[in-house]
Amino acid sequence: MTYCVGLMLKKGLVFMSDTRTNAGLDNISTFKKMKVWEAPGERIITLLSAGNLATTQSVVSLLEERTKSPEDRDPAILSVPSMFQAARMVADTLREIIDEQSEGGPTADSTFNATMILGGQIAGYPPKMFLIYPEGNFIEASDDTPFFQIGEIKYGRPILVRAFNENMSFEEAIRLLLVSFDSTMKANLTVGAPLDYLCVESDTLTISASGRFSESDPALQTISENWGAALQSALEALPEVKIGD
Amino acid sequence: MTYCVGLMLKKGLVFMSDTRTNAGLDNISTFKKMKVWEAPGERIITLLSAGNLATTQSVVSLLEERTKSPEDRDPAILSVPSMFQAARMVADTLREIIDEQSEGGPTADSTFNATMILGGQIAGYPPKMFLIYPEGNFIEASDDTPFFQIGEIKYGRPILVRAFNENMSFEEAIRLLLVSFDSTMKANLTVGAPLDYLCVESDTLTISASGRFSESDPALQTISENWGAALQSALEALPEVKIGD
Repeated sequence: MTYCVGLMLKKGLVFMSDTRTNAGLDNISTFKKMKVWEAPGERIITLLSAGNLATTQSVVSLLEERTKSPEDRDPAILSVPSMFQAARMVADTLREIIDEQSEGGPTADSTFNATMILGGQIAGYPPKMFLIYPEGNFIEASDDTPFFQIGEIKYGRPILVRAFNENMSFEEAIRLLLVSFDSTMKANLTVGAPLDYLCVESDTLTISASGRFSESDPALQTISENWGAALQSALEALPEVKIGD
Repeated sequence: MTYCVGLMLKKGLVFMSDTRTNAGLDNISTFKKMKVWEAPGERIITLLSAGNLATTQSVVSLLEERTKSPEDRDPAILSVPSMFQAARMVADTLREIIDEQSEGGPTADSTFNATMILGGQIAGYPPKMFLIYPEGNFIEASDDTPFFQIGEIKYGRPILVRAFNENMSFEEAIRLLLVSFDSTMKANLTVGAPLDYLCVESDTLTISASGRFSESDPALQTISENWGAALQSALEALPEVKIGD
């Protein structure tokens, strides 16, 4: 499994992804699930992937034009005229890959599935974010639904639903995401650190901040240790509940 | 779907269950998913059910001996010598029902599944709690794992993992459960109020407190309204996170 989140803030886009992949509980590895295409000053596009790793790596490789020799590559995603067109390109590639893999048998439908979050900005247009389904269709983030999650979304959802605020700073957003990821990692072994993050301020068309929190990163550890106590205090501050017979 | 939780505290056992059942999003109903067998002063046994409603109702009806005429009924669960034996009886009944229903076809396995939490106490022995699987096997709660969840468990799990404490009072436990259920109901339409609860103090062998929180219950509404703000404050009280390029 996997856990990835994309947030659309007033200030810009924020992405975070875990790095754990597993083929069985006894076969886990670390892979980056965040891919960035950048033409600084002209466009920046980020892709987060959850699902079958062979599928998602194939999609990224095809988008990178790795079927061609290195000198002939000129990824079309760096020249599409709109983010909507970029989402269509990613979605079509995803559907093709799954179709190919699934010829093997009727139960393969689910095995090779993947879901993706695509977000970014092209000069002259506002930032956009899309959630792309394995069927090759997609939805766009809006004021009503300003964040997307993919993968193991349930554990970390309540805190996002309750505490997300489009006016957050990047630092506040990353702190919120660390709590959401920590809640997930505490409950599910298929999501694990290190955690990659990326912040893109609107209209800068370049990376504002990016990096990785390792499992032993003091920031992640501090959040994890303090969150339990913070939740306890929050709970104790709630009005008392009367129970009767 | 469904959400039910059983907690094993030092003080005794606490149970909470939602009441929403659905056969499709456009066909929802309200059913109590908590069944209590009580011989005050001698034993008290509570059963929480998640899964196919026809299956779980059949299990309860068979345990109640509703195949017999009313005057001949003498539920064996009221005379088994131990909670372990009660768990075996429930588990065997559950497996039989699922086996019967599943003859229809190979995909029926999952459709008719159910999972149950059984907890209670028989005079002379300590309180016990079991999680019963559709295959008819079960596990017992212990100091290491002092609570069980069934149904739609993920949204409400992080707060339980972080804030459960075996020394809680019944009031504190119910407040914790209301938060866990509220987080779930905010994210998933298949879990819904009213919420039934039951508290059984150890060695009293009778119901200490029981009741139902309706959707409009001031206690549930207050918790729901205050929890968002409490989480925001908890988040803001966390150390700041530095992000760099």
